[in-house]
Amino acid sequence: MSPTPHVGQTLGEFVAASHWAGISPALRHEGRRSILNHIGCALGVARDPAVTTALKVMRVTAGPATSTVFGQGVKLDAMSAAFVNCIAGNLLDYDDTHLQTVIHPTAPVAPAALALAEQRGLSGAQVLHAFLLGAEVECRIGNAVSPGHYARGWHITSTCGGFGSAVATARLLGLDAAQTWHAIGIAASQSAGLVENLPSAAKNVGMGNAARNGMLAAFLAEQGYQAAPAALEGPLGWARAMGDTPNLAAITEGLGSRWEIARNTYKPYPAGIVFHAVIDACLALRERLGVPPEAIASVDVAGDQLLLDRGDRVVRTERDARVSIHHSAALGFVRGRAGVAEFELPAVADPALAAFRAKVTARLDAGLPRGAATVTARLADGRVASLTVTAPIGSSDNPMSDAALEAKFLDNAGLGGFTDRAPAMLQAIRGLEQASDLSGLMSLLA
Amino acid sequence: MSPTPHVGQTLGEFVAASHWAGISPALRHEGRRSILNHIGCALGVARDPAVTTALKVMRVTAGPATSTVFGQGVKLDAMSAAFVNCIAGNLLDYDDTHLQTVIHPTAPVAPAALALAEQRGLSGAQVLHAFLLGAEVECRIGNAVSPGHYARGWHITSTCGGFGSAVATARLLGLDAAQTWHAIGIAASQSAGLVENLPSAAKNVGMGNAARNGMLAAFLAEQGYQAAPAALEGPLGWARAMGDTPNLAAITEGLGSRWEIARNTYKPYPAGIVFHAVIDACLALRERLGVPPEAIASVDVAGDQLLLDRGDRVVRTERDARVSIHHSAALGFVRGRAGVAEFELPAVADPALAAFRAKVTARLDAGLPRGAATVTARLADGRVASLTVTAPIGSSDNPMSDAALEAKFLDNAGLGGFTDRAPAMLQAIRGLEQASDLSGLMSLLA
Repeated sequence: MSPTPHVGQTLGEFVAASHWAGISPALRHEGRRSILNHIGCALGVARDPAVTTALKVMRVTAGPATSTVFGQGVKLDAMSAAFVNCIAGNLLDYDDTHLQTVIHPTAPVAPAALALAEQRGLSGAQVLHAFLLGAEVECRIGNAVSPGHYARGWHITSTCGGFGSAVATARLLGLDAAQTWHAIGIAASQSAGLVENLPSAAKNVGMGNAARNGMLAAFLAEQGYQAAPAALEGPLGWARAMGDTPNLAAITEGLGSRWEIARNTYKPYPAGIVFHAVIDACLALRERLGVPPEAIASVDVAGDQLLLDRGDRVVRTERDARVSIHHSAALGFVRGRAGVAEFELPAVADPALAAFRAKVTARLDAGLPRGAATVTARLADGRVASLTVTAPIGSSDNPMSDAALEAKFLDNAGLGGFTDRAPAMLQAIRGLEQASDLSGLMSLLA
Repeated sequence: MSPTPHVGQTLGEFVAASHWAGISPALRHEGRRSILNHIGCALGVARDPAVTTALKVMRVTAGPATSTVFGQGVKLDAMSAAFVNCIAGNLLDYDDTHLQTVIHPTAPVAPAALALAEQRGLSGAQVLHAFLLGAEVECRIGNAVSPGHYARGWHITSTCGGFGSAVATARLLGLDAAQTWHAIGIAASQSAGLVENLPSAAKNVGMGNAARNGMLAAFLAEQGYQAAPAALEGPLGWARAMGDTPNLAAITEGLGSRWEIARNTYKPYPAGIVFHAVIDACLALRERLGVPPEAIASVDVAGDQLLLDRGDRVVRTERDARVSIHHSAALGFVRGRAGVAEFELPAVADPALAAFRAKVTARLDAGLPRGAATVTARLADGRVASLTVTAPIGSSDNPMSDAALEAKFLDNAGLGGFTDRAPAMLQAIRGLEQASDLSGLMSLLA
């Protein structure tokens, strides 16, 4: 009787043995959607000081210029490029979400795969495959420690992202099962990132390191570095240190038959995910009522405790706006849209939005499910209109369509100043699976 | 009334306000001893595959060659050089120990300071000053979470080493108090390293990252990156996530008047610190008895529970040998020395040592203090000799002399193949405080 395999061993075998032919068209499609959404989010913030500062610092110590930093006209070595691209992709938390763990799966994984594939002339299908495997391992390890991990202070996208980057890199390097197992174990000794730091630029460092250090884990494993066999599940290993009472079985159960990354979701609005139902409802009511904001006397927003905990607050900063019930409602009724610009300082300070925010009240409706909201608008003329949204656009039950995701990409690319090249970029990402290398896409992203 | 300052804020003010003139001669001397010991340990393993593999991997992505990798004839960018030098310095755990936390203070901090100072032409006194400040913060943060942190699975030298590297780098960059505070907070989001991985090369990655990522924290803070004010002590911050019930006051109490790094200790033998009393006792008994090993019929070693837990085991590998009561005793009586070579495979397999190990028995003496041992040798002719060592050489109460530390340095340098240059290196490190830059020392270390 063979002993129970180590967790990392099972993962390593899965990753090394995976065949592209065994990846379903639906899963490949979700991988492409994830990468499209990621690159768009990164392009949208290409001029943000958080991104340009990270680039400035990495340039000083970066090695051979092999890998494109999206939208910067600069190449860096693969690890340094992945660091900056990961930061950009996740900067506004406008990227994707694996809802069970609240991991943003793509930002730490796709930049590693893209940077290495560009350096080595690997194909688009190889990138998609490596991305899917990396993101799958990332989300599954996250499942094992959620939700206690985050509640304890661990920024789960940063801490688990390194596993995803290590796996994607290992796959592209062609590591065998044992080397991939060691790469995962080495990634465990690099896992870091704190929730306390999320409102600060230190968040970006945890993110960028997930991509950068995950790659390092695979590079070292390729050259013979090993990790402890039970780096994940051992008594002094990752899951106990960071997960208190981990559910280790969740990492490997149904591996290869049920894909966590197939459940990836995308945000139509750069706001906290619990506010999306509020925005959807207000946009729909605005359309239905067809009146200017002055005609609305008051708006009542009802939701569950999480919505109230997160969002019933005064709005002073961009960050406040992204987690505000009042701002979300005002955007729906006043602007009729909720894109990136609607959460930036000019919008925060817009007197029309401020005046509308003052008309909004929030209250608990314990009967509503998580993520749902009921919005009731009372007009000055006495009419009342109400709408409940339980599955906002972008949720698992109401995913963003390909058309909506592509529109989001074009919107983001425009924000970053890439309107001219955006349609060609879109075309290149649509054709990623057929691309024999990344040179076409990367020349557009340069 | 001003509010209680944040922990990182107090540390940042302390570091930024520190004056070299306020650092006592004794403390400067301890800093020099720490760096001497570190460089010697790193040189001793310069040909070890763990070190040359790390170098090989870093060379691929390293940037401008500004900073020396000790004994390799290679320069890398400052972060990459610090990564490799940190790994080398700590590889055998033959380096220094802050006994209260079991942190090896110098390996993550000195490489960062030396690499940056070499790049920027900074003086030896600046390096010493930055090192002392970084190591002090590292040990103090470690005090706040010990011993639960290590018991939970955190390799404390890796996790706290990043703070030390960040502080030393911040000081050399001339960051102000607020920037230094942010650098410490950014380091918190990079803190990683697992005890489970200690018997593997993954340990080295946690170590190297402490040096490398700590530098990155300071570089980013210099360019305006900020961290959460309470990154260390906040409810979702470092100390709670990694320390369960931290003693935060330990970080700042007596800051600047009582120096933790002044209590640094150095190992005369590359074995677990609890075995040092056994080795000392056996060496002394060998000298006292003046008989060949064949004349000794049996050896009884008594110690506390920790000694037995760690060291009562069969010896098959180098790692076993470093934590073996039996091997320690055999070295004392058979070889009369316990240097690096005495724990390597030829010694492990030496029939004379194996035969002597079989004569050794270990037993509990609960009355002995931690770190002590009583060794009783019974000779074939019936004589019995016994010795109790409570303060082995290298412990706080019996520190290694300067002469012994310099002999250890020369021994290590010889092991690495640097016998010819070793005396000049020693001279350069003796004169570190007077050196206007590091060019002389680094040309010897190249």
